[in-house]
Amino acid sequence: MTSAASDADRLARVALSRLGEPGDPRFAVHTAQMGAPAFHDALLHERDPGSGVLTDVATRLAAMQPERDLELAARLGIRFVVPGDAEWPEQLDGLMEAGEVQRRGGPPLGLWAKGPVRLDRLAGSLAVVGSRSATTYGGDLAAAIGAGVARAGLPVVSGAAFGIDQAAHRGALAVDGLTVAVLACGVDRAYPTAHRSLLDHLAGHGLVVSELPPGSAPTRLRFLARNRLIAALTRGTVVVEAAVRSGALSTANWAGRLNRAVMGVPGPVTSAQSQGVHELVRTGAAMLVTSPEDVLELVGESGAHLVEEPRGPERQRDRLSLRHQQVLDAVPVARPAHVDSISRSAGLSISDTGNALVRLRAVGLVEADGDGWRLAALAHH
Amino acid sequence: MTSAASDADRLARVALSRLGEPGDPRFAVHTAQMGAPAFHDALLHERDPGSGVLTDVATRLAAMQPERDLELAARLGIRFVVPGDAEWPEQLDGLMEAGEVQRRGGPPLGLWAKGPVRLDRLAGSLAVVGSRSATTYGGDLAAAIGAGVARAGLPVVSGAAFGIDQAAHRGALAVDGLTVAVLACGVDRAYPTAHRSLLDHLAGHGLVVSELPPGSAPTRLRFLARNRLIAALTRGTVVVEAAVRSGALSTANWAGRLNRAVMGVPGPVTSAQSQGVHELVRTGAAMLVTSPEDVLELVGESGAHLVEEPRGPERQRDRLSLRHQQVLDAVPVARPAHVDSISRSAGLSISDTGNALVRLRAVGLVEADGDGWRLAALAHH
Repeated sequence: MTSAASDADRLARVALSRLGEPGDPRFAVHTAQMGAPAFHDALLHERDPGSGVLTDVATRLAAMQPERDLELAARLGIRFVVPGDAEWPEQLDGLMEAGEVQRRGGPPLGLWAKGPVRLDRLAGSLAVVGSRSATTYGGDLAAAIGAGVARAGLPVVSGAAFGIDQAAHRGALAVDGLTVAVLACGVDRAYPTAHRSLLDHLAGHGLVVSELPPGSAPTRLRFLARNRLIAALTRGTVVVEAAVRSGALSTANWAGRLNRAVMGVPGPVTSAQSQGVHELVRTGAAMLVTSPEDVLELVGESGAHLVEEPRGPERQRDRLSLRHQQVLDAVPVARPAHVDSISRSAGLSISDTGNALVRLRAVGLVEADGDGWRLAALAHH
Repeated sequence: MTSAASDADRLARVALSRLGEPGDPRFAVHTAQMGAPAFHDALLHERDPGSGVLTDVATRLAAMQPERDLELAARLGIRFVVPGDAEWPEQLDGLMEAGEVQRRGGPPLGLWAKGPVRLDRLAGSLAVVGSRSATTYGGDLAAAIGAGVARAGLPVVSGAAFGIDQAAHRGALAVDGLTVAVLACGVDRAYPTAHRSLLDHLAGHGLVVSELPPGSAPTRLRFLARNRLIAALTRGTVVVEAAVRSGALSTANWAGRLNRAVMGVPGPVTSAQSQGVHELVRTGAAMLVTSPEDVLELVGESGAHLVEEPRGPERQRDRLSLRHQQVLDAVPVARPAHVDSISRSAGLSISDTGNALVRLRAVGLVEADGDGWRLAALAHH
């Protein structure tokens, strides 16, 4: 394995990942400031690094055998990927940004991974999440979205849970697409146990990932931390069904805070399983999507999903509403313009213009630049 | 009847309204510029007013008997309301704004009305529109929204068509609420004929309105013109169900162009009757609503629908998402700030901030002012 990460760094991260809970801001901050080995040694020698970590820590750390952890994991086909490794998913750096660390949102110390696919393949991936107690409607849609985006080449990331998660995985598998499970327990464990064969299949053909060391059991806290990881690993999150207190909404909130695309699939307003999604859309936290095509328009590689439409950018423009075309026509090519100047040129209200600009940016046709907006390079043609 | 409108003006408008089609930009422009009597006389004496109106017009005009029209209408309980009359709905002035006239969107020359309710009662009204071939789901929802907003005191405006329209009217009637039909034919006609008793009931307890003189038959053009009138008379339009080419979408488009609230009720993405609504929401043309409460939050009289929540403004704020609260906290009280400055203060992206501002404006908490945004008076407390 070629890596910029030292053995000392990797072993320290193994030990630290056994010590703390996922997302613990103290671990993230001190590892970032001191480096994992120095933080590990500081804890081991009970010099208080100001971390607030309890004093029995030294005893626990001293008893750890990180080399043995790595050996045992390797025998199970499990690797421990750390920053500096070639396959480390750089998009997790978003978690280090101000504000997120203190919400138990620090980046993972490392990722335990099982499966033939490299973690850096997830850079352009899509999360499909939702209720465990999905309706048939929701399950069918999750499978259709999983299949549609996997067919377009995007890995489908989910949590291997009952309901929407498993439907999304199975949708991707049905078209021989790439799909990845991120777990709230060790990747050697099957949770839920009924999904053992699904997880075995994912580990054999795709990837099963966790920041928790092998053997770890799932807890509520770990599910919430896992949700942040799904949001941070992917380019966007689609919530298919979610009741008002569904854990899927925490994934959506994380995705929003990390500036990833947040999407929601509507359903009958009479269905409790769609209420959480409707609330996301209603408050502007999620964009409404109704099909894999809608999703790809927002998170697909530019043009990659438009392969059957050779005049990509022009076709994209043609598909815009009249109002969006009016706004697009009013956006300058070079020097950015304020929304109010664009709204005057377009002959539309500021709020309509603002809405249209946000939408045009989502599909890559305009860019925000300081105070103003201008055409994206793609849209010049 | 006390009115600023002269008899000559009223009679000229009666004759002109028999001559042209609703929304004809030539009639709107010349009536506005010359006054109805002068325009009428110009046409009558074949001095070409540059209107492009054909020359047989003079003959047709000369044969008209507007006094008799008004007498016959009065015998049927029908009045002709013109600008200057006390009950004239001033919100129709929006149709005179630049751009709208040329889309066949000129204001009506007058409104033929039948029923005990004054037209100016419609200032705070809500339009509920949608597919003629509604599903049971859509019909139930239209009735629930009609009942919910009527109970809160808002008149419910629709087109008396099959499907969503009639469900909305009936929902309002079920709670003894005020509901008004705007027709694409004369108010003395029953279209569809199956709705004769519904229309009789509306004329007896509410209002039936049209810009077409009694006796006029409905045409496709008149339906489109009627849709603009529904949008212009009301404070907002809810589309309950609409297929991709539904006429209800034209009402929504008019409402958007007139800066009225446009709302859509989601449904199963597998339902063709919800596709048009989803498209409105997806492109940002409509806000998603799932209940009468959502609708009232956007179009209700400030506080009027919050009667059971005495701490109105604060409660409204408490109901905001964390992100919207963050943005609201970053909006200055006095001097307006640019969206980028607000986004920096809020620690959010420009697009998230823009979305939140539009939403906060919709609920009356912030105001757009030139380049920037500031707190609305209501939100100071």
